[in-house]
Amino acid sequence: MIIILKKNATPEQIEKLTSDIHALGVSIHKIEGEHTTVFGLVGDTSRINANDLSANEAVEAIHRVQEPYKMANRKFHPENTVIQVGEASFGGDEFPVIAGPCSVESEEQIIEVARAVKASGAKLLRGGAFKPRTSPYAFQGLHEEGIRLLTLAKQDTGLPIVTEIMSIGQLDLFADVDVIQVGARNMQNFELLKALGGTGKPILLKRGLANTLEELLMSAEYIMSAGNEKVILCERGIRTFETATRNTMDLSAIPMLKSMSHLPVIADPSHATGIAWMVEPMARASAAVGADGLIIEVHNNPARALSDGKQSITPAAFDALMKELRPYVELTGKQI
Amino acid sequence: MIIILKKNATPEQIEKLTSDIHALGVSIHKIEGEHTTVFGLVGDTSRINANDLSANEAVEAIHRVQEPYKMANRKFHPENTVIQVGEASFGGDEFPVIAGPCSVESEEQIIEVARAVKASGAKLLRGGAFKPRTSPYAFQGLHEEGIRLLTLAKQDTGLPIVTEIMSIGQLDLFADVDVIQVGARNMQNFELLKALGGTGKPILLKRGLANTLEELLMSAEYIMSAGNEKVILCERGIRTFETATRNTMDLSAIPMLKSMSHLPVIADPSHATGIAWMVEPMARASAAVGADGLIIEVHNNPARALSDGKQSITPAAFDALMKELRPYVELTGKQI
Amino acid sequence: MIIILKKNATPEQIEKLTSDIHALGVSIHKIEGEHTTVFGLVGDTSRINANDLSANEAVEAIHRVQEPYKMANRKFHPENTVIQVGEASFGGDEFPVIAGPCSVESEEQIIEVARAVKASGAKLLRGGAFKPRTSPYAFQGLHEEGIRLLTLAKQDTGLPIVTEIMSIGQLDLFADVDVIQVGARNMQNFELLKALGGTGKPILLKRGLANTLEELLMSAEYIMSAGNEKVILCERGIRTFETATRNTMDLSAIPMLKSMSHLPVIADPSHATGIAWMVEPMARASAAVGADGLIIEVHNNPARALSDGKQSITPAAFDALMKELRPYVELTGKQI
Amino acid sequence: MIIILKKNATPEQIEKLTSDIHALGVSIHKIEGEHTTVFGLVGDTSRINANDLSANEAVEAIHRVQEPYKMANRKFHPENTVIQVGEASFGGDEFPVIAGPCSVESEEQIIEVARAVKASGAKLLRGGAFKPRTSPYAFQGLHEEGIRLLTLAKQDTGLPIVTEIMSIGQLDLFADVDVIQVGARNMQNFELLKALGGTGKPILLKRGLANTLEELLMSAEYIMSAGNEKVILCERGIRTFETATRNTMDLSAIPMLKSMSHLPVIADPSHATGIAWMVEPMARASAAVGADGLIIEVHNNPARALSDGKQSITPAAFDALMKELRPYVELTGKQI
Repeated sequence: MIIILKKNATPEQIEKLTSDIHALGVSIHKIEGEHTTVFGLVGDTSRINANDLSANEAVEAIHRVQEPYKMANRKFHPENTVIQVGEASFGGDEFPVIAGPCSVESEEQIIEVARAVKASGAKLLRGGAFKPRTSPYAFQGLHEEGIRLLTLAKQDTGLPIVTEIMSIGQLDLFADVDVIQVGARNMQNFELLKALGGTGKPILLKRGLANTLEELLMSAEYIMSAGNEKVILCERGIRTFETATRNTMDLSAIPMLKSMSHLPVIADPSHATGIAWMVEPMARASAAVGADGLIIEVHNNPARALSDGKQSITPAAFDALMKELRPYVELTGKQI
Repeated sequence: MIIILKKNATPEQIEKLTSDIHALGVSIHKIEGEHTTVFGLVGDTSRINANDLSANEAVEAIHRVQEPYKMANRKFHPENTVIQVGEASFGGDEFPVIAGPCSVESEEQIIEVARAVKASGAKLLRGGAFKPRTSPYAFQGLHEEGIRLLTLAKQDTGLPIVTEIMSIGQLDLFADVDVIQVGARNMQNFELLKALGGTGKPILLKRGLANTLEELLMSAEYIMSAGNEKVILCERGIRTFETATRNTMDLSAIPMLKSMSHLPVIADPSHATGIAWMVEPMARASAAVGADGLIIEVHNNPARALSDGKQSITPAAFDALMKELRPYVELTGKQI
Repeated sequence: MIIILKKNATPEQIEKLTSDIHALGVSIHKIEGEHTTVFGLVGDTSRINANDLSANEAVEAIHRVQEPYKMANRKFHPENTVIQVGEASFGGDEFPVIAGPCSVESEEQIIEVARAVKASGAKLLRGGAFKPRTSPYAFQGLHEEGIRLLTLAKQDTGLPIVTEIMSIGQLDLFADVDVIQVGARNMQNFELLKALGGTGKPILLKRGLANTLEELLMSAEYIMSAGNEKVILCERGIRTFETATRNTMDLSAIPMLKSMSHLPVIADPSHATGIAWMVEPMARASAAVGADGLIIEVHNNPARALSDGKQSITPAAFDALMKELRPYVELTGKQI
Repeated sequence: MIIILKKNATPEQIEKLTSDIHALGVSIHKIEGEHTTVFGLVGDTSRINANDLSANEAVEAIHRVQEPYKMANRKFHPENTVIQVGEASFGGDEFPVIAGPCSVESEEQIIEVARAVKASGAKLLRGGAFKPRTSPYAFQGLHEEGIRLLTLAKQDTGLPIVTEIMSIGQLDLFADVDVIQVGARNMQNFELLKALGGTGKPILLKRGLANTLEELLMSAEYIMSAGNEKVILCERGIRTFETATRNTMDLSAIPMLKSMSHLPVIADPSHATGIAWMVEPMARASAAVGADGLIIEVHNNPARALSDGKQSITPAAFDALMKELRPYVELTGKQI
């Protein structure tokens, strides 16, 4: 950690800062420049919060040298983490595709979609039972019944299931769920993250609409430091000024996250674009950029879907997409 | 609701759309333009989700005519809602200022700050017991003990207390809390919002970092439709590309929200700027633009604060700010 | 164009609006809804500026039905436009790669880089002679001498040259330049765009840092409506809150632009990421998503480059990238 | 300037970096931390471009200590710059308001508005002759004739005139213009900025839609370093995800710019909000936050305005605004 002192800092202010720093158990290496004095902090600065020291009157600016995430940091864990879910694995040589409807709507619907996506090569089934909707008047999901229907589809097809949790109180219902998803709006719901750290289940952690990659890794760190290292990161688009797409898909996040962290990173082209016909080209690009898998919304009748129909593709379109995708995945050295 | 049809929509696609719309219980008024056909939907369209219809193949675009929020909408409730908290009131002729430290740190600290801000004219005491921190390694608040210390400060000074909730499970601890705050990161924690709808307490709902004003009102609608109409909205800065300030304070949100809704709207210049010396000018501007009050971070020793010291002002600076602020508030016809 | 009237509009206000609309030469189709009245405008509304009508007191909101760009619109020109530059062509079955240094620095430098990138398969040479730099104290390019050196490299290698123009007054110096680039900061320098409409040369038009895709097409429309239809669009990253990369590369812009317009669209992974090692994965993703080519910064000694060294790759890295890229391009049905 | 070295940098890489730094004429102060080595550069680092050094393989990160703007920097020029225009002055104890139509449309219009705004207390007249419009099909201004009409209005009322330049070639027409405006889209049109540095006229420099405050000051630096120190900065809203307003007005920019620089800073609530009724509350807030003046769009018939009618206020509304504004301005110690 490096502290740049104010030009006109008084000796008293500098002395106070010096004693504040020593109280944190680190020593100071001082550089006197022509116009500026700089303190280099030597020792374990990982627990020091830069913002806290910056209220000191002698401080002009503070720059961190070490990343604030540790368990998620590739520097301390150079090999890829590989997370096994049933027969699928994330972060290794495979490229698992998770597919299914935005919301579980009925037994017929989820079984039909599950069979179809399995036949096309999907390795896991997604489906929402608890739906975070902007409007309190919109369909909120089938809740407990939705999870029951997902487990029926799992029994029928053998596909592990992925579904979203919205509150700690729902956790008991997730006993048969294979991967618990944390949605973009809950990426910084820290109490929920801590609770998920107490489960042994893989967590699919989506990037928030306005969250930096460092913040995403800090949220992974919440789960990991609470005891659960099975975190799968997911890029699903960020919010910008552009309105032609629902969100702006930040594909550079994928190689950047993989250089910062050893955790697997998958992509969600359905939410990132919000438009059914864009899912296929963005899925190809996600594979090409080095993603570890995909999550895609598939509905047997998008025009009648109870949520997100606009971005859902049909089972037939999903089948075509999987065929189209295979050679791109193979070029990156993975198997779909 | 207005639906613009695709130029090349087939008669079958249009027939399917027509029957989908009729199934929703509304009728269609058709306009044939030179290049375009438009459907105007007549009837109660308030429960129709535009995104759902947009997956229909005949649809080019859909425009809503009515706002999706109802209970929060000024059109259906022209007078200001006034929310009483102890002797303070939000939304009427008063301009209550909420002040106190970011985190409750000790009995001495909270009592000292509470007495000081009361003497300067603050009408409510703020202080965090549960702290949402980006890092799992940062100070997370004193939890139950923090709330106990806040109630001691309330007994000592008579100031009603405002503190943040992060999870439904914490609700039992909030029995003596006067105003429950929902932080920016939880603005779309819908399960929490619904639970708060079941309390009779005033809710201070902060705008999320990347949330539109419409989304903020939809979150207020969650609380209101669950039975609690006492919602105070708060602008606290949004996330943009600018890095000179912690966030970008959107002061235009205040008059705009007050035109869209009848709910009170206050401003948080501390989080919006993240810089202690900017709190005062932005507090003046908040008053001038028509805010219904302020929430300000005050710490007895910002350089030693366990969180957000950089944006906290001293009791002396707060006292000066309140004196400076008074004539601006009075110009807007309110009393501080 | 569709106009939603205010609920409480007076008959006089509505009459005034009606006459304003009739004065524009279009007729009105009126829909009376339960709570709302809507005017559908029938006739040629393409020249009507929605913002201008919206100042009318009876107007609640206006929605456009037709896109405001015409010459660039794929609806009126379904086939791809193919732009030929020397032996390369943009927008058809080829995938030309433009490569070269950020700035032209010396004869040795530009000749060495030109030969190297040609040997690796680049089809055009880029190099800046006029450099838009944030700081007036930074290297501003070699100007006229820079263009002279580029033409030497063109004679030496046969590669057509691409270089940026910053001002109308520089146009005379561009006689031997094959493709004139308009940088992101000048995307809405409308006087420059009009002037470029008077040249017969292909224009490489980069998206501005905060410009929507519609605005990019409107800028293309400026050039096209002034007489020059040879416009190549370029996605080069937009400005967001994320700081891990220099910009956020919006790859969804590529398929979206190609659906909105018939113009060729290329990608610039160097500026979009600002980081040398990210150029390769983002180049692969650009090919996979359907781009019509790339523009890449290559420098013989990035650590000593006078500008943008951080995002420049070496000739050896460029050679490896081209080999890596080929199969991805071929999967999309193009030839590199 | 501070350089953080990569953990695994080789001695050869470090030696190369060392020699590169010495070649720039500065010396190195080295700090060896537990996990990290840091170079503090001592000497005149103001001309060193951090990005250029960062391509060196040994470099992990570079942090600047000094601001890159010098002539605009308050550190080297502690007193406010006061710019005199006719009888008005910017940056001192006055609060001049510039008012007038978006576009000059006719002699009658500009004379009528000029007389009205003068009577209400405006100190300068604005009016666009060259209009930057997103669409090539929109009204582009009266050009030379527009400037002629502005000078007639100046003769009639005595008000100095402010109008926008879009291209260096237009400069000859600006001989009688008192303040030359650079619009948001041209904030980084560096060739234009350099040319304006050669005039002796005050320049009104608007912040770009996606430009940081530092970039705004760097653009001011272009004008100042070319010989013209009379630069008035203007906050006019930035582009964010929010769509309820045309732009997001960043009022915190005003005190922040005034702390970074000695130049005057004014506010443009018309463009910042895009909505006529919001101009008044945002004008009050601009005064309260410490702006040095305002620029406001006033039109005698907003519903028939050829541009920006939606955000234009009538002369009567402007008169009311000026009366409303006066006490807020006086509270800040200025005179309107």
